[in-house]
Amino acid sequence: MNTTPSLELAALIEGYRRFRESGWTPRRERWAALREGQEPRVMVIACSDSRVDPAQIFDVDPGEIFVVRNVAAMVPPFETTPGHHGVSAALEFAVQFLKVREIVVMGHGLCGGCNAALTQSMRGTEPGQGGFIADWIALLDNAREHVVAQHGTEGREAARAMELAAVKVSLANLRTFPCVAELESRGKLRLRGAFFAISDGVLHLLDEDSGKFAPVA
Amino acid sequence: MNTTPSLELAALIEGYRRFRESGWTPRRERWAALREGQEPRVMVIACSDSRVDPAQIFDVDPGEIFVVRNVAAMVPPFETTPGHHGVSAALEFAVQFLKVREIVVMGHGLCGGCNAALTQSMRGTEPGQGGFIADWIALLDNAREHVVAQHGTEGREAARAMELAAVKVSLANLRTFPCVAELESRGKLRLRGAFFAISDGVLHLLDEDSGKFAPVA
Amino acid sequence: MNTTPSLELAALIEGYRRFRESGWTPRRERWAALREGQEPRVMVIACSDSRVDPAQIFDVDPGEIFVVRNVAAMVPPFETTPGHHGVSAALEFAVQFLKVREIVVMGHGLCGGCNAALTQSMRGTEPGQGGFIADWIALLDNAREHVVAQHGTEGREAARAMELAAVKVSLANLRTFPCVAELESRGKLRLRGAFFAISDGVLHLLDEDSGKFAPVA
Amino acid sequence: MNTTPSLELAALIEGYRRFRESGWTPRRERWAALREGQEPRVMVIACSDSRVDPAQIFDVDPGEIFVVRNVAAMVPPFETTPGHHGVSAALEFAVQFLKVREIVVMGHGLCGGCNAALTQSMRGTEPGQGGFIADWIALLDNAREHVVAQHGTEGREAARAMELAAVKVSLANLRTFPCVAELESRGKLRLRGAFFAISDGVLHLLDEDSGKFAPVA
Repeated sequence: MNTTPSLELAALIEGYRRFRESGWTPRRERWAALREGQEPRVMVIACSDSRVDPAQIFDVDPGEIFVVRNVAAMVPPFETTPGHHGVSAALEFAVQFLKVREIVVMGHGLCGGCNAALTQSMRGTEPGQGGFIADWIALLDNAREHVVAQHGTEGREAARAMELAAVKVSLANLRTFPCVAELESRGKLRLRGAFFAISDGVLHLLDEDSGKFAPVA
Repeated sequence: MNTTPSLELAALIEGYRRFRESGWTPRRERWAALREGQEPRVMVIACSDSRVDPAQIFDVDPGEIFVVRNVAAMVPPFETTPGHHGVSAALEFAVQFLKVREIVVMGHGLCGGCNAALTQSMRGTEPGQGGFIADWIALLDNAREHVVAQHGTEGREAARAMELAAVKVSLANLRTFPCVAELESRGKLRLRGAFFAISDGVLHLLDEDSGKFAPVA
Repeated sequence: MNTTPSLELAALIEGYRRFRESGWTPRRERWAALREGQEPRVMVIACSDSRVDPAQIFDVDPGEIFVVRNVAAMVPPFETTPGHHGVSAALEFAVQFLKVREIVVMGHGLCGGCNAALTQSMRGTEPGQGGFIADWIALLDNAREHVVAQHGTEGREAARAMELAAVKVSLANLRTFPCVAELESRGKLRLRGAFFAISDGVLHLLDEDSGKFAPVA
Repeated sequence: MNTTPSLELAALIEGYRRFRESGWTPRRERWAALREGQEPRVMVIACSDSRVDPAQIFDVDPGEIFVVRNVAAMVPPFETTPGHHGVSAALEFAVQFLKVREIVVMGHGLCGGCNAALTQSMRGTEPGQGGFIADWIALLDNAREHVVAQHGTEGREAARAMELAAVKVSLANLRTFPCVAELESRGKLRLRGAFFAISDGVLHLLDEDSGKFAPVA
């Protein structure tokens, strides 16, 4: 095992040193408080994509948002089948223990996961060769049918429609969790769909009444 | 459905406006390039905890790290059982399609997930009441036994030992993925364990030869 | 042979000591990684002029750009005649072995080499007295004709036109190298013309569609 | 022709913006003076390698060093054969017109060009496939024979010996230029061999009396 850092790791270490200088030392009181525990009021579910870091897009301070990131910002539905349910565990942690008051599902443009869902390009591949992605985005199968019926499987419009639909799928799945549904009905928890368009850097918010995403002014 | 933003959402929107001013507009060429696709060289697997945002701790630019975040920065082992394997899908995406060159598993101090694993405080709870967390951190069961044998289930030392052990579990599980093992053996992919100690803000790196985590100077 | 450093060398040694303190020691991980090899993604071809150091103008880290510097940032065309083809060797190294993804040719204002090309002031001088410069900048002869036809041989406009034309000559000559042409056509390599105006410190980029250089905002 | 910047170019543009802010604007008087012309007192001949930027290693200000960079920091001997002699043109420019007082030839460790010279790995390849490198480093053929006789063609010692010998070759070739030899003999120009060891970041200077390179304290 070679312990020499790669150039990639060296860059992370240099970034960490900048963080120490500008993100830690001048903010030691905040960090001292965070030592006692976290109390984020918001959970953000976002994509793993390197271009859509929620802490950057929302310019938040340490301690403010509890974050799940996976391919396409997906939330599987409430299921009690055996297995390791990562998103469900995080959701449980955020809602039951941290008692967050808002859950934001943030999709984004140019999403490779949504594109794979739309084009079914991974279908039939082996696990490790694309099969895990295929299984994961099968969560979007129903939504995909509607998108394809309206927009086909190609072009910018179809892609955007799939990306926006995926946010709605995750919101709907969130509501299959009894605790989420109950807290939302009691006004103790809000769910919010959001969409970050990489192509022009504009954040959109979903108005669930109209079903439309509108840009933040 | 009320579309008035909550105080929480209003804060995110304000942050987004700061991002537009200082993170988007002056960096429009970078964002224009990112419109063409992402090419991160590093995948970071980190905890959902609000205090350990990898983009902040490593001070990276948009596009540099592909990020998975879940409770306790866990990687389940390679499994071909049916189901939605979120981490496996993200790993597949990063390694097979984005061809990242380094995977960093970053654990952290004061980790609620690791603490639950150590104390088994969620054991026997219902799904949605703690049961999802219990199932998720059951991934740490074997490692826990060794920790408890040496340090018991209480106190700072036991907690830290559990947190460090969790990083090693994720590294070991990463290597159960055939593509990861093969690329690592060919020198095309590096795995690295890291640990961010919230209490003093110090990043540690794992030397897998000695099994020890050492602070970055 | 006197080994006492001259004042000039003493100044370099003092600079080296500053580099050790601020450029080496705090960045030891990067340097350790660079010990394993270089992987620059960009090749920069720039002028030897003391005022246009690419590492300063682009504020890059060690390891990021592979640099050729000669009089007027020239690239001779692909030639298989015998001889020591320095630029061709560097180009071959960068493109075939390091697999850089972008080649930037950076011209600059107030360029002595371009001025000599425009005014033909070295013509007919002996090698060592100006003859080598005359031969070298004969690479610009064709471009010069067009410039002179439009702007004459004197004044700021003619000088600037010659300097900008020189960048285009180097880009055209780069494309006479089969490997460059092929990689560019396959989208694996990009060529980019740039121009640094010393008089106001503004960098310009060439849009090859319009043939115009525009300032970076 | 796509004018969208690549991620590589976007990074250079961001670096340029930092330069504008910290390297240009606060130093506008220096730049105003440089507008009137350059008066570097030193010429540095260095390798194109991305890790050995002379402006970084000597921490110089804009305007201080006139720089040639090519593979292995080579200087071909004085030759009046037809052709484009890039290094000779730069040398002529520096010595005859800028009247530099010192020429530093800086070799470096882990040099790919010197390694190719030592191992003859490019020999017999086509131009564009390694042939240009082969021709270029043929300048080291004589020196190589001595190195191989003493150290063989493999291992760190042989590599270092080749790298140090290359500096001496360039110094010797510099002295084949009549103007260099004459100015040096009159004490108007000094030549200096230097060597930057990437592995530990230490600069060495050549004492031509002893033929040894010694680290700068």
